[in-house]
Amino acid sequence: MPSYKAPVEDSLFLLNDVFRIDRYANLPGFSDLSPDIIEATLTEAAKLCEQVIAPLNRVGDVEGCTRHDDASVTTPRGFRDAFRQLADGGWVGITSPTDFGGMGFPTVLGGVVSEFLASANLAFWMYAGLTQGAIAAIIDHGSADQKATYLPNMIAGKWTGTMNLTEPHCGTDLGMLRTKAKAQADGSHKITGTKIFTSAGEHDMAENIIHLVLARIEGAPAGVHGISLFIVPKFILDENGAPDDRNQVSCGSIEHKMGIHGNSTCVMNYDDATGWLIGGENRGLNAMFTMMNHARLGVGTHGLAISEVAYQNAAAYAKERLQGRSLTGAKFPEKPADPIIVHPDVRRSLMTIRALTQAARALIVWTGLRHDIATRSDDEAARQAAEDHMGLLTPVVKGFCTDCGLVNAVMAQQMYGGHGYIAENGMEQFVRDARINQIYEGANGIQALDLVGRKLALNGGRALMAFFAEVDGYLTEKAGDEAMAPLIKPTRESLGHLQRASGWLAKHGTANPDDSGAGSYDYMQLFGLVAFAYMWCRMVEAATAKLPEATSDQAGRLTTKLAIGLFYMERLLPDTAAHLARIESGSASTMALPAEAF
Amino acid sequence: MPSYKAPVEDSLFLLNDVFRIDRYANLPGFSDLSPDIIEATLTEAAKLCEQVIAPLNRVGDVEGCTRHDDASVTTPRGFRDAFRQLADGGWVGITSPTDFGGMGFPTVLGGVVSEFLASANLAFWMYAGLTQGAIAAIIDHGSADQKATYLPNMIAGKWTGTMNLTEPHCGTDLGMLRTKAKAQADGSHKITGTKIFTSAGEHDMAENIIHLVLARIEGAPAGVHGISLFIVPKFILDENGAPDDRNQVSCGSIEHKMGIHGNSTCVMNYDDATGWLIGGENRGLNAMFTMMNHARLGVGTHGLAISEVAYQNAAAYAKERLQGRSLTGAKFPEKPADPIIVHPDVRRSLMTIRALTQAARALIVWTGLRHDIATRSDDEAARQAAEDHMGLLTPVVKGFCTDCGLVNAVMAQQMYGGHGYIAENGMEQFVRDARINQIYEGANGIQALDLVGRKLALNGGRALMAFFAEVDGYLTEKAGDEAMAPLIKPTRESLGHLQRASGWLAKHGTANPDDSGAGSYDYMQLFGLVAFAYMWCRMVEAATAKLPEATSDQAGRLTTKLAIGLFYMERLLPDTAAHLARIESGSASTMALPAEAF
Repeated sequence: MPSYKAPVEDSLFLLNDVFRIDRYANLPGFSDLSPDIIEATLTEAAKLCEQVIAPLNRVGDVEGCTRHDDASVTTPRGFRDAFRQLADGGWVGITSPTDFGGMGFPTVLGGVVSEFLASANLAFWMYAGLTQGAIAAIIDHGSADQKATYLPNMIAGKWTGTMNLTEPHCGTDLGMLRTKAKAQADGSHKITGTKIFTSAGEHDMAENIIHLVLARIEGAPAGVHGISLFIVPKFILDENGAPDDRNQVSCGSIEHKMGIHGNSTCVMNYDDATGWLIGGENRGLNAMFTMMNHARLGVGTHGLAISEVAYQNAAAYAKERLQGRSLTGAKFPEKPADPIIVHPDVRRSLMTIRALTQAARALIVWTGLRHDIATRSDDEAARQAAEDHMGLLTPVVKGFCTDCGLVNAVMAQQMYGGHGYIAENGMEQFVRDARINQIYEGANGIQALDLVGRKLALNGGRALMAFFAEVDGYLTEKAGDEAMAPLIKPTRESLGHLQRASGWLAKHGTANPDDSGAGSYDYMQLFGLVAFAYMWCRMVEAATAKLPEATSDQAGRLTTKLAIGLFYMERLLPDTAAHLARIESGSASTMALPAEAF
Repeated sequence: MPSYKAPVEDSLFLLNDVFRIDRYANLPGFSDLSPDIIEATLTEAAKLCEQVIAPLNRVGDVEGCTRHDDASVTTPRGFRDAFRQLADGGWVGITSPTDFGGMGFPTVLGGVVSEFLASANLAFWMYAGLTQGAIAAIIDHGSADQKATYLPNMIAGKWTGTMNLTEPHCGTDLGMLRTKAKAQADGSHKITGTKIFTSAGEHDMAENIIHLVLARIEGAPAGVHGISLFIVPKFILDENGAPDDRNQVSCGSIEHKMGIHGNSTCVMNYDDATGWLIGGENRGLNAMFTMMNHARLGVGTHGLAISEVAYQNAAAYAKERLQGRSLTGAKFPEKPADPIIVHPDVRRSLMTIRALTQAARALIVWTGLRHDIATRSDDEAARQAAEDHMGLLTPVVKGFCTDCGLVNAVMAQQMYGGHGYIAENGMEQFVRDARINQIYEGANGIQALDLVGRKLALNGGRALMAFFAEVDGYLTEKAGDEAMAPLIKPTRESLGHLQRASGWLAKHGTANPDDSGAGSYDYMQLFGLVAFAYMWCRMVEAATAKLPEATSDQAGRLTTKLAIGLFYMERLLPDTAAHLARIESGSASTMALPAEAF
């Protein structure tokens, strides 16, 4: 069975040495964050993940969730108790406002903890992750009364939350949604319709489930501008705010999925269920996007999380499994064969996973910090710049980090040879679980379209220009730094590819939008590669600076960073040229055939 | 549930128009092959695959195989009857010698049929595919008596065959294998040991199972030169050659796997089982390689097969699923949304799968033809050239076509959005099934090492030089052909990358074998891309030549070929430069870290 050790050291390196979290002490919630507190928090989270939650990962996969005849759902053995420990530790509300019982920690720290949790057990973590998304939506769009009513118990993990968007005939294109809401005299609405793919839609781990449901109020306009968001609790609250009458919402069935079996993905039936409008009539999509953006960064983190745990197990196996001899002569002549880590192709795989995983972690920490600035800074310009960054990077984090997640999980599984295909060894579960991250919260093709079709041109391309200015400025600043030279040159070249691609899309996309669409996926990948290269520059810079004063234990880790950074530049970054070539080929050959020819 | 239609037309185009099978009438078994017979054969195979075997694909996945307390194994509902139809149609013995009841068709035709079968139901097909491999080993290495004893019933599909190589502690490195053989006075051997990952090891579809088992005769040398191959039938034959006493071999358990659930992957226990030596003492690996090479081409075909069936379903869904509007304005304003095939990124995915799938089919047909020349020609030089080609291309077909198989299956699944993650829709099964092809019969990393470490330098690089000469000669010949210009230039450039990479590896690999190892995987992919480019040139050439005389139905298909060929050049071939860059970066960064740093 796979094991897991949370990468506390690497996270601390990013927070303290690369992104200097101590510089943000002026932001609310940051002032008390001494390095000790950060380390203690991550260590505590690591313990829970390693000892309680990770051991349930395979149990969850094998048992899955069970729907009973009364429409109740049982989660896998051990999940209930583990969720209680998670909630009691305050982890559901780690970033929630202290006013409502949250820990008030920065988003960036919540992100690090969510990586640990998703590595340990993605299906389990989602129950809490979706609750965090629902909390965020209620904070941003709920009335004072709604906040007081729902937040404390959700933040305490007594109640959980869900997102109900998808219907059988519409997912990406929410304009077609049919679920209806009928206004009642008391200000509530009656909700009727069927939602599918509702993660954590029904289960046995919470006293109440707070569904956030998109529906169309009778008489509302067609399309996305007629959609409203409703709070539909599983149990309607009594006058004291305690769960009371059962609402007319129930789980019709649980989907049989490729992976994340431990999470109950439900068909939810709303049959004149009582709901309360949140965020204003016909403003549902707007409110839902709060959850969505939160969730998209979260899903990017899932991609990272699976990469990390898959890597750890592949590396351990590669050091242990004896097979064949080193090409340069036996390294362990006393053993019947060398461990497979002596083989360059095994190294190539392990180095690739690591280079992508550590860069993804850096990108997510960097973006998490910007999220905190965007939501907590009182400097208008800083807030706007941070918001721009978030908007631009969210599709990249979601799309690219989850694509890497699958590739990494597959590579890690491959290390095991035939044993990787056997369920008991747990590597194939990582592949099946990793696959969902590319699909939910907007399939990665939609992320690419969001990036190219919306984010690039927004505000006259302000966010993109700021990103270019930052990376370009950094490379210029470090141009004379000899230690950085092997990284600066390739990063500069790949940045040039991204800039050229951006120019090409700006020029051709207006004349022929299909040119944008046909290049969008490559552009997202190109962007991801360049962002990762920049992250490697930053990490290598910090590692180099820290080395002279490092303990011998630290020195090993820091030297490792330098080696992986170089590997990234030599082995992974060269792909940017091919992405550029594809983008510049336009859409002619892609769109040449009539639909009937497929 | 997914559907399947065998690509008979595309196969006929390759056989008749691209590779001109009519030119090989001088080879035994080819003379009677009129275009009518070929078409009738493929049409018949298509019918069986579409109507009988494909409908069992999901049943097999859901039910899997069941081992009972008496160690017997039941295959999924419907498999037994379908296997009877397959056997009765003569399909197991399609390429086997007519002397023993086979149809005597060329390998190239058997390969086409096996693609259809593997598309329809990979897990089911493997029972027959492994039997074909065992038949090939007995033909090549068995005594006259062994051939007469075993071949007729195996060719008739009454008995099936298996390969027993892997043991818990050794797969790739067979030198470590421990299964023992003790010589008996009557010339037989007693075999004792445990084999794992034995596909089709035990089941209920045949009267006997003929296990080919690698074991070490008592006193034999250590390592790979002390391994012998044995025939160990499940039921020992009586004097009339009929199955009689149960042999001491049994299925200890069935593995729980990621996919191919319909095939029983068994732990096989040999406990003083009676076996008969085949192919000479300590010559086991040699004999096993007959099966292995057969199987490796077969597995490459599986990669193609999954790509094709996944594509068909993705294309159908893309034409049917309504979501969003075309970027260039609504294409079906009367519908609530456009079908997703209007979106360039959906097109990109479908075109990519197709370009890779059709090129893989061409490469496999081309290589299958060479196999026939290698085994049937009486022209010594032609035979040698064909054998060289086979040796060189086998790892490319196995490694590259199966890597494409996974990528294609994932891309096809992605078209379905969330619905692709749901088991009922069958797309996720293709991904799980496709994954095994990269692992078994030598994991793809081993294929890359075989290509770079063995095949390149063999006979002074004769095979590689011949391949270069063929492609180079072709490109030179077509240099003036205007219709071919958009293909010739990029193919020429990518061939240059491959040549440069070959030179680099030859130069550096001797001084530092790790440089070879670190570049091997990229080299295999680079080789695959160039081979596919050559295949696209050949297909576009044939399509262009055929167009003037084509019926309107044919014209549509031929024009489609031209469009896909161009797409391949613009969108997929640019990757060769990145592969070259990675290879030329050497092994320094890959091997920089000590094992403890992982």
